[in-house]
Amino acid sequence: MEQNIGRLISILYRKGQAYLNAVLEPFGITASELPILVCLYKGSGKTQEEIGAYSCIDKAAIARAVQSLVNKGWLRKEKDNIDKRANKIYLQEIAITSEKQIMQLLHSWAGYLAEGLEQENVAIMYNVLEDMVKKLT
Amino acid sequence: MEQNIGRLISILYRKGQAYLNAVLEPFGITASELPILVCLYKGSGKTQEEIGAYSCIDKAAIARAVQSLVNKGWLRKEKDNIDKRANKIYLQEIAITSEKQIMQLLHSWAGYLAEGLEQENVAIMYNVLEDMVKKLT
Repeated sequence: MEQNIGRLISILYRKGQAYLNAVLEPFGITASELPILVCLYKGSGKTQEEIGAYSCIDKAAIARAVQSLVNKGWLRKEKDNIDKRANKIYLQEIAITSEKQIMQLLHSWAGYLAEGLEQENVAIMYNVLEDMVKKLT
Repeated sequence: MEQNIGRLISILYRKGQAYLNAVLEPFGITASELPILVCLYKGSGKTQEEIGAYSCIDKAAIARAVQSLVNKGWLRKEKDNIDKRANKIYLQEIAITSEKQIMQLLHSWAGYLAEGLEQENVAIMYNVLEDMVKKLT
């Protein structure tokens, strides 16, 4: 295979992080905290392990991002009723009321990338990327 | 758009970095140094600005990775004959003799990702990713 998927993915990743850091600045959160929120928007009250499994981010980075969002008042930790050693992470009000805007920013990035491209091909790309991610998770 | 391209790209990026760090360990180099080598494999003797433009990595990260590879004996810097303020970066022997193996490792990752998928769709995915990257560079 002649093409270098690593280069394409790396560029999209880095440019995406830079874009998100810029547009998230008014909210006082960062691109590296975003995957935690996106995961909890699918259902508040998850363990750090569950968040890590969804986003494929390592334990230490999840712990740092969660703690940072707790400090900023976006999340709170609560002892799990069943497994007393585990914490469950819940969205706080600021996170809940910002959901729509945050998700719009995320979609605006996806929309910008796909703009002007053949939508059928974009859909195929999504399916292929999803199949690749499934292999890895 | 329902799908979250950010999540897919981030997972492929992080898993790719982890894979490459593991397979590059015997060479004593890291995934973050790899884009510099890949760029110079297309032609030795480039400025840091040229390497940055190709890989979309910021100045500071390029400077760190180049210096690390210079320290490891993989690259050398030389003053440019025309622009005396600029350095040109050249591959050293260890980098040149490792090219084939390094590029094979990179392709093995791409090959693993594409394995078992419809090759026509993988080709479409490459084209779409390339079009997206072109918008950003």
